[in-house]
Amino acid sequence: MPAFYSPRHLRFVLYDVLRVEQLTDYAYFQDHSRETFDLVLDAAGQLAETRLRPLLTVMDRQEPQLVDGQIRIHPAMHALIRQFGEDGWINAPFRYEEGGQQLPGVIHGAAGFIFQAANYSASVFPFLTTGAANLLRSFGSKTLIDAFTPKMYSGAWQGTMALTEPDAGSSLSDITTTAEPTDEPGTYRIRGQKIYISAGDHDGVENVVHLLLAKIKGGPPGAKGISLFVVPKKRPNNEQRATNNDLPDNDVATAGIYHKMGYKGAPIAHLTFGSRDDCHGYLVGEAHQGLRYMFQMMNEARVGVGLNATAIATAAYHASLAYAKERPQGRVISEKNSGTPQVPIIRHADVRRMLLFQKSITEGSLALLMQCALWADLAHVGSDEERERASMLLDLLTPVAKSYPSEMGCLGTSAAVQILGGAGYTTDFSVEQFYREARIHPIHEGTTGIHGLDLLGRKVLLHNGKALRYFVAELDATGLDAQRHPNLRPYAARLEEYTNLMQRVTGHLLGLAVQDTERFLADATLYLEAFGILTLAWQWLTMANTAQTRLDAGATDDEADFLEGKLLTQRYFFEYELVKIDCLARRLTSPDAVTLAVRNEFF
Amino acid sequence: MPAFYSPRHLRFVLYDVLRVEQLTDYAYFQDHSRETFDLVLDAAGQLAETRLRPLLTVMDRQEPQLVDGQIRIHPAMHALIRQFGEDGWINAPFRYEEGGQQLPGVIHGAAGFIFQAANYSASVFPFLTTGAANLLRSFGSKTLIDAFTPKMYSGAWQGTMALTEPDAGSSLSDITTTAEPTDEPGTYRIRGQKIYISAGDHDGVENVVHLLLAKIKGGPPGAKGISLFVVPKKRPNNEQRATNNDLPDNDVATAGIYHKMGYKGAPIAHLTFGSRDDCHGYLVGEAHQGLRYMFQMMNEARVGVGLNATAIATAAYHASLAYAKERPQGRVISEKNSGTPQVPIIRHADVRRMLLFQKSITEGSLALLMQCALWADLAHVGSDEERERASMLLDLLTPVAKSYPSEMGCLGTSAAVQILGGAGYTTDFSVEQFYREARIHPIHEGTTGIHGLDLLGRKVLLHNGKALRYFVAELDATGLDAQRHPNLRPYAARLEEYTNLMQRVTGHLLGLAVQDTERFLADATLYLEAFGILTLAWQWLTMANTAQTRLDAGATDDEADFLEGKLLTQRYFFEYELVKIDCLARRLTSPDAVTLAVRNEFF
Repeated sequence: MPAFYSPRHLRFVLYDVLRVEQLTDYAYFQDHSRETFDLVLDAAGQLAETRLRPLLTVMDRQEPQLVDGQIRIHPAMHALIRQFGEDGWINAPFRYEEGGQQLPGVIHGAAGFIFQAANYSASVFPFLTTGAANLLRSFGSKTLIDAFTPKMYSGAWQGTMALTEPDAGSSLSDITTTAEPTDEPGTYRIRGQKIYISAGDHDGVENVVHLLLAKIKGGPPGAKGISLFVVPKKRPNNEQRATNNDLPDNDVATAGIYHKMGYKGAPIAHLTFGSRDDCHGYLVGEAHQGLRYMFQMMNEARVGVGLNATAIATAAYHASLAYAKERPQGRVISEKNSGTPQVPIIRHADVRRMLLFQKSITEGSLALLMQCALWADLAHVGSDEERERASMLLDLLTPVAKSYPSEMGCLGTSAAVQILGGAGYTTDFSVEQFYREARIHPIHEGTTGIHGLDLLGRKVLLHNGKALRYFVAELDATGLDAQRHPNLRPYAARLEEYTNLMQRVTGHLLGLAVQDTERFLADATLYLEAFGILTLAWQWLTMANTAQTRLDAGATDDEADFLEGKLLTQRYFFEYELVKIDCLARRLTSPDAVTLAVRNEFF
Repeated sequence: MPAFYSPRHLRFVLYDVLRVEQLTDYAYFQDHSRETFDLVLDAAGQLAETRLRPLLTVMDRQEPQLVDGQIRIHPAMHALIRQFGEDGWINAPFRYEEGGQQLPGVIHGAAGFIFQAANYSASVFPFLTTGAANLLRSFGSKTLIDAFTPKMYSGAWQGTMALTEPDAGSSLSDITTTAEPTDEPGTYRIRGQKIYISAGDHDGVENVVHLLLAKIKGGPPGAKGISLFVVPKKRPNNEQRATNNDLPDNDVATAGIYHKMGYKGAPIAHLTFGSRDDCHGYLVGEAHQGLRYMFQMMNEARVGVGLNATAIATAAYHASLAYAKERPQGRVISEKNSGTPQVPIIRHADVRRMLLFQKSITEGSLALLMQCALWADLAHVGSDEERERASMLLDLLTPVAKSYPSEMGCLGTSAAVQILGGAGYTTDFSVEQFYREARIHPIHEGTTGIHGLDLLGRKVLLHNGKALRYFVAELDATGLDAQRHPNLRPYAARLEEYTNLMQRVTGHLLGLAVQDTERFLADATLYLEAFGILTLAWQWLTMANTAQTRLDAGATDDEADFLEGKLLTQRYFFEYELVKIDCLARRLTSPDAVTLAVRNEFF
C-alpha cells in the first residue's frame, strides 16, 4: 500500500463512477481495455514508488543550482527524465503514427496524478514536454513537428511554456519580447526575456524547446499582436539530428535561477533571448494567433495544476492519516483515569474532522479532475453532440477545476501539518514540504483572482448561458439519481437548495453587470469559491450514488467499509463545506460594495 | 516609515481606544506617563529597525547548527541578546527593587510586538527569559531568585520552558521526566528528555535556565504529580557568581536540533537531563503544584503567541501593501484600450479585498491582544472589582486571543504571498518567509483543537458563566456606543444579531453536554472560530466608535484618511468575516454528528 495515494479510490472514480472503459467504444481508443488501463496505472504506481518517491526529500534539500550559465538539477533526475520518455509516458495520448499509444487523456492524467503525488517536482519535467509537444502537433507545420517532437518524446529534449515577463504576469497582452522576420520564411529573430520558466534550462536534457509568445514587429497592439514560436536553446541541425553533438547555440541564455518556497526540485529560470541578436524562433501556425494557440496548452495546464494540487494534498492526507492511526496522545474525553494508556489521535473528533476535510477535498477534487479529463477525451472523439456538451462543460469548469483544488490544497496540507502537531512543523516529516509545495498552485497558470474573473465575467455567459445550463442539468441528474436512495434524498434536496441559491446569486450579479462592471466582478473570487463548493458537492453526491448502489447490490467487509467511507465523506462535505455557500451568498448579494470605496490612503 | 508595522495604528489602539495612560493612576505605574510609554515604543522601533530587521533574512538562510554538542546561533544575535538584557527589556515590567521599570505589561507587550514584526526568531530569546524569570519570581524562593534572575535579566543567561516530551505534547500529564530527592532539601536529581525546547541551548549566552516540569518519584499519578523545577545547564556557583568561568556542568546535554519550516533563527532543541545521573533541579514553590505554576507562564505565552502571529501577519501585510501600490499589472476592468499604461495592482478590487482582509485581521487582533495585556495589568494592580472583571475576561478570551490570530495569520500571510504573485513564491521577497513562520502558531502553546476544548469545555462555564456575562456586557456596551453614530447603527444591530446567535449556539451545545460529552465538544474548534470572529467584530466596532468620534470632532487630511480607513476596515470585517458565523452556526447546531460516526476503516 503506497503511502501517498489510494489506488482504490482512483479506480473507483475511473471505473465505477466515470465508467471510462466506455471510451474504448470510440475508434481512437478501440485497442484499449480495462486491462490496458490497469497496466498503465500499475506501471505508473511502480515507477512512482520506486523511482520518484525516494527522491522527494533530497530534491527539496539539494536545490538546482546555476553553474557557469547552466542549471544543474539533481543527478538522479537525468535517468528518470530519459525513462519517462523511453517508456512512452510523454506521447502516450498521441497517435500510433507519432509513436504514441492513443491512450485516453483521462488515463494519462491519472498516471500523472500518481507521479505528482509521489514527487511533484520530478513529475513536471515530462508533462511540460507533453504540453509543449501537443502545441506543436496541433498547430505547427510538418517540418517543425519532425524537427522537434521525436526527441521531445524520447525525453532527450525538454519542452517548456515561455510566457511570463517581468512586466507581464497576469496581463499577458503586455509582453514585450519581439520577433523580427528574417530572410528565411517562418524564421524570426527573437529578442526579450522570460521569467519563472519551469524547467527552462537544465542539464538533464540535451536541448530545451521553448514554446514562446512574442510580438512580431509592426503587428497589431495588445493581445492581437501575439504570435507563437518554437525557440530552442540549440538549433536542430538536420544532418546531425541522429546525434546531439555540437548543435548550434541559439542565443538563449540562462540569466538566473529563482529559489522558491517549495517545488524546489524543478528549476524555474530567468532566460534572455537574443542578447547577441542571434536567437531564431520558428513561427508556429499563423501569425497573430499565438494567444489562441497557447490557450490550448494553458487550458490543459489549468486542469493539470488542479490535478497537481490535488496530488500534493492527497500525499499529505495519507501521511497525516498514517500518523493519526499510530501516534498515541491524550485520552477520550469521557476517560477520567489518566493512568489508562493514551489513545491514537485518530480517536479524537477534531482529528477526524481534519482527516475528513482532507479526504473530502482531495478525493472530491480528483473525481472532478478525472471528469474534466474525460470531457477532454470526449471533446476529441465524441459525436457532435457529445463534443459540444463535453467542451462546454470543460470550458465552464476549467477555472473551478484549477482553483478549487489549488486553494483547498493549501488548507488541506495545513490540516495535515496540524495533525502531526509540533513534529509536523519540523523537517523530520514530509508534511511541511507538502505545505510549501501546495502554495504555488493558487498562483501559477492564472491566479485565483484571474480565474474568478474568467468564471463570472466570461464562462457563466458562455454561449448565452448554454454551458451553465448543461452544468445545472448535471446537478439535476445527480439529484434525481440520489432520490432513488432513501438515505440520500435529504442530500438531493440540499443540493437542489444550493443550486437554486447559486442561480439566484448569479442572477443578482449579472443584474449588476449591466450597470457597473467593476461592482459586478468585485467579489468574483468569492463567487468562484462558492461555485467550487457546489461543484464538489455534486461530485460527492455522484460518488455517494455509486457507493450506495454497490452497497445495495451486496458489498461486504473491506469493500463495504470503503463504500461506507464514501458515504461518510459525502455527509461530511454537505455538513461542513456546502454550508459555506450560505455566508458567501450573503456577501455576494450584499448592497455594500466595500472594496470599491477604497482609497490608497485608507490602508 | 518602517516597512513592517504601523506605529500610528499601535498608538491609536493604546492611547485612543484603550486609554492606557489611565494605568498611571495606579501606584505601581505612577512614575510613568504617555511620554515614558512613547520613549519605550520609540526605542523599540529603533532597535527593531536597526538591529532586528536587518537580520530577518540571514537568520532564515543560515540556520543554527549543532556542533560538538552545542547549538550555534547566528553570531550577530550574541550582541543583540546582551543588548536586550542590558537595555532593560527583559525585566522591564518587574519592580524597581528587582532592577525593573514597573512598566505596564501592555507597553512591554507592544514593544514585543514591534520586535516580533521585525524579526520573530530574534525576538523570542528575551521574551522566553522574561517568562521563565517571571515564574521564578512568582513562585520561587529568595535563594532561587537571587541565584538565577540577575543574569537572566542582564541577558547573560537564557530562560526556557521545558515541558514537551516525545510522548507528551498536548497531553502534558503524560510526561515521564522524573525527579528524585537528594540529601539537600529542595534539590532533586532530574532524569528524562525534553523536545522542541525553544532556545533550549545556544552559544549566545553563558548558561541556560530551564523551567522544567517533572514528576517526583512516588508522587500522585497524572497531572497532580507534576512539579516545577529550575534546571540550569550549568550550576550557579556562589563564589563565582560575578564571573561565569567554569560553572559546574549540570548534566544537561543537547541531543539534537530540529530543523523547521520557518522560525529558523531560534533553535529548538532535544535535551537530555541526567544521562550521567548528575542533573540537579531545584524545586520551585511547593511540590505537585507544577502545572498550576506553569499555567501562569503558559497563559502569558498564549497571549504572547497570539501577538507573535499578529506581528508576523502585520509584517506580511505591510510588505504586500507596499508592493501593491507600486507593481503595475493589468488595467481597470472598464479600460478596453490595451495601449494605456498598466495600473498598480492596488487598483483591482480583488487585491483590495486581500489587503483589507489582512488589515482587518492584523489590526483587529492587535487591538484584542493589547486589550488582553491591559486586562493582565488590571488583574495585577486594580481594585477587587476591576481585578475580578479583568481576570475573568482574560481567562475567557485567552484561547481566542491565542488561536484566532494564529489561524488567521496563516491565511493573512497567504494573502500577502498571493498579492505578490509568482514573485511572492520566490525567496526574492520576504512574504514567503512570513508564510512559513506563521504556520507554527496554531500548533505551539496548545494546538487550536486544544484551545477549542478549553473555550467550550471550560471557559464558557467559568464561574457559572460569569466570565461569559462580562463578555456579553462588553459587546453590549460597544453596541450602545455605536448607536450614537448614525452610520454605525446598522453595525450595532448586526453585532447584536450575531451575539444573540452565538448565545443560542452556546445554549444548544451546553444542552448536548448533559447527554454526551463527546458530541458536545466534537466541533469545539468551529465554536472557537465563531467566537473569535465575534470577538474581532466587537474590537472593530470599538475602534470604529473611536474613529467616528474623532472624525466628528473635526479631524482632517492625513488624520481623517487614517480614521476613515478604520471605518472602512470595520465595514470590511462585518461584510466579509462576521457573516461566516452564519455557516459555522448552521454546522454547530446540526443534528448530524458526522465525526462521531467514524470508523478508521472508512478513511
